[in-house]
Amino acid sequence: MYYGLLTDLYQLTMGYGYWKTGKAEQIAVFNLFFRKLPFKNGYAIAAGLATAIEFLQNFKYSKEDIEYLSQLKGNDGNPLFEQGYLDYLANLSFTGDIDAVEEGEIVFPHQPLLRVTAPLIQAQLIETGLLCIINFQTLIATKASRVVSVCGQDEVLEFGLRRAQGIDGALAASRAAYIGGCHATSNVMAGKKYSIPVKGTHAHAWVMAFETELQAFEQYANVLPNNCVFLVDTYDTLEGVKNAVIVGKKLKEKGYIMAGIRLDSGDLADLSIKARKILDDAGFKEAKIVASNDLDEYVIADLKKQGSVITVWGVGTNLVTAKDQPALGGVYKLGALWEDNQWKYKIKISELPIKISNPGIQQVKRFYDANNTPVCDMLIDENLPNSHVVINQDNDTQSIDTTVLSHSRDLLIKIMEKGKLVYNVPNVPQCRTNALQRLSEFKQGIQGLTPEYAYFVGLEKNLYELKKQYVKAKS
Amino acid sequence: MYYGLLTDLYQLTMGYGYWKTGKAEQIAVFNLFFRKLPFKNGYAIAAGLATAIEFLQNFKYSKEDIEYLSQLKGNDGNPLFEQGYLDYLANLSFTGDIDAVEEGEIVFPHQPLLRVTAPLIQAQLIETGLLCIINFQTLIATKASRVVSVCGQDEVLEFGLRRAQGIDGALAASRAAYIGGCHATSNVMAGKKYSIPVKGTHAHAWVMAFETELQAFEQYANVLPNNCVFLVDTYDTLEGVKNAVIVGKKLKEKGYIMAGIRLDSGDLADLSIKARKILDDAGFKEAKIVASNDLDEYVIADLKKQGSVITVWGVGTNLVTAKDQPALGGVYKLGALWEDNQWKYKIKISELPIKISNPGIQQVKRFYDANNTPVCDMLIDENLPNSHVVINQDNDTQSIDTTVLSHSRDLLIKIMEKGKLVYNVPNVPQCRTNALQRLSEFKQGIQGLTPEYAYFVGLEKNLYELKKQYVKAKS
Repeated sequence: MYYGLLTDLYQLTMGYGYWKTGKAEQIAVFNLFFRKLPFKNGYAIAAGLATAIEFLQNFKYSKEDIEYLSQLKGNDGNPLFEQGYLDYLANLSFTGDIDAVEEGEIVFPHQPLLRVTAPLIQAQLIETGLLCIINFQTLIATKASRVVSVCGQDEVLEFGLRRAQGIDGALAASRAAYIGGCHATSNVMAGKKYSIPVKGTHAHAWVMAFETELQAFEQYANVLPNNCVFLVDTYDTLEGVKNAVIVGKKLKEKGYIMAGIRLDSGDLADLSIKARKILDDAGFKEAKIVASNDLDEYVIADLKKQGSVITVWGVGTNLVTAKDQPALGGVYKLGALWEDNQWKYKIKISELPIKISNPGIQQVKRFYDANNTPVCDMLIDENLPNSHVVINQDNDTQSIDTTVLSHSRDLLIKIMEKGKLVYNVPNVPQCRTNALQRLSEFKQGIQGLTPEYAYFVGLEKNLYELKKQYVKAKS
Repeated sequence: MYYGLLTDLYQLTMGYGYWKTGKAEQIAVFNLFFRKLPFKNGYAIAAGLATAIEFLQNFKYSKEDIEYLSQLKGNDGNPLFEQGYLDYLANLSFTGDIDAVEEGEIVFPHQPLLRVTAPLIQAQLIETGLLCIINFQTLIATKASRVVSVCGQDEVLEFGLRRAQGIDGALAASRAAYIGGCHATSNVMAGKKYSIPVKGTHAHAWVMAFETELQAFEQYANVLPNNCVFLVDTYDTLEGVKNAVIVGKKLKEKGYIMAGIRLDSGDLADLSIKARKILDDAGFKEAKIVASNDLDEYVIADLKKQGSVITVWGVGTNLVTAKDQPALGGVYKLGALWEDNQWKYKIKISELPIKISNPGIQQVKRFYDANNTPVCDMLIDENLPNSHVVINQDNDTQSIDTTVLSHSRDLLIKIMEKGKLVYNVPNVPQCRTNALQRLSEFKQGIQGLTPEYAYFVGLEKNLYELKKQYVKAKS
């Protein structure tokens, strides 16, 4: 599949303009970043890079695509585009450089997750697709990380397919949720495509398809003795637990283990405590209690507070749609343009300081103390002489002299060079390991529903001064 | 592409159970419906059927899919599925019947949008994919209808690709938003795929790529004189409008029309009024004022109240993600099972009355008065003797004797028979026309942000009595 048309029309009209005015091949640098952390979380987890690479490698126009574009008309009824431009698009592919943070990297506002250095027309045409992919997967990986952090040692299963936003909304969400720390998905296609463990046993419909619940459990256990988590709430939850126990004993006699039960309605805290007692009394101390039903990190935290003894959480809709904030407002801003044999830096002005973009060709340096704990992130421009001072981006009276710190690491690494992939793309489980590892480096206080402290993120001093000059000049 | 794996694992384990216990080929009837209108809207607009048909026609397993399933293990390390089941799946395709409401149909809670009559195993395996498709598109078509209804005669453009939930999250949203009444999309791929008009001109990046805003507008007008909507807020909005006027005059001299300007930040009501004056004074009374920037139906209603003179609304994130409620809670419930040569009716019990499912093989009759205005909807069972009385589903002391009404229409029509498509699938613009036409039949009062009255939806009396018996028997 070709992705050339996966773009806003205005990218194609601007592209036409660049092509006609001789600017199409001018090299441009665009930075993709978000301005605000989602869910008031203390950090975000970058995700979507591998999908973005696939998109870039297939950013081309088929004959049919070109035919379609040739039929678009302007308000005078004449074609929007002339043939020469369409011929140009027919031969276009991405030939630029991509620098990006790896999937699973912990990221903060105003840091480029991805930097494009490419002919202006290409950089423009790929904007919308890149944003769509990175925005959503970063959002869901971050949401998953919140849920997982509340769950502590418990398992978190992603169950969202049926209420996700479209087929790929579901697949991309399963992928990102796993990177963010979930343990498995119910989505079998995502399991196959992304090497994610898959989980599932049976639904209410199974129970309803038999005369009695006990019969339904017995039949299930006969068929799948090595995958028994009984859904106990089709009729009466605690009766259901008792039926599970009856069948669990038969399983035991045959040398199998009843893995657990699942609660899907009612007062989950209370029911879990009562179910635990029934299970324990019957000798099923190892049987897990799985819960589902409109869960999110707040409900889970609350159930834990109420003393629930649930150990596996099935989280669906609220995770895969990021219900409380279903979009990350990532943007893609021109940082520099190569003109007259030099870089001209660019800045987008706004009345809102948070919306003023940072100019330049950006890299992020993460500084660590001697214990390998991150202390601050410094946004630098790759062409400016860099000082050792980082100025807080939210409060510019705060700064850190990084010479006192132990070592640093560049977050953006080279992914594509002249359109060729130069990066060994890790698989999804590796991205997940990366995320868990990177998050564990930080102080615990950035995690949780309301983070205890804000991680220090800022601009290198010379870049800060440069930006100030640009703002002054433009306003 | 095959969609057999686009399902929850529990469907495949239940499927295995049905296959092993000899129930796989038992004919089952499932009803797909939602329980609550989204956004407190007065109605919903059904969408997604054509996508669902595509899914059903490709509901198969490739060799690779079967290979993947053969590797899944239970908790004892042994394979989950035996080879015979995998061979069965390898040869499976959908052979059942589908009855559904057409896309664009106005629908209400508890009414089946789609009814599956198929071998139990098939009906089960397709559940998750069907829900994913119908839930999301119905949600977005409904959201779009709200936005459009607030906008009155104004145009509504869907601009959501960059913040949509995945690539297909975007495509499906563009499709559904158009069905719901939007006038165009920015998403070129959706435009091509679904015959939706596409719109777009230029972004801030275009302006930033030139020395001055005036230069940027002039260059744009030279290249695309028949597609000029100038984005005026890169630096100073009203200065931007003045620059647009300068360029608009040059366009006029060359025989072209400046289509309008676009506002993307600031106080949109105030700026639109000031911009209108500048445009009118310069003789551009026909130039449209387009607005964008985090719009939704509430913001638009508010801007209208403030006297804004915006005539085209670009709505993105909040529309394509249905921000205030990003999922429709559609469900899929077993209504009947063919056993011992007769239909056995099924009902899902819950402590919450709203969660008790309706049994049977359902059809919806919409009753009209002599002016062809819908008066009430009656859920019937196709095998019960039907009375003329419909009992309100929210308040069973209310009923209507339908003999006083003029005529009725069945909402569900035959889509697939024994796995074969027997329905002439309309294209997306036809679905949109259908939606607008159907909505216009209803009293105006069901529209708007807070509907004035609730449309009467209920159960045919005999079905109502039957359901009562089942509830009594099960509790």
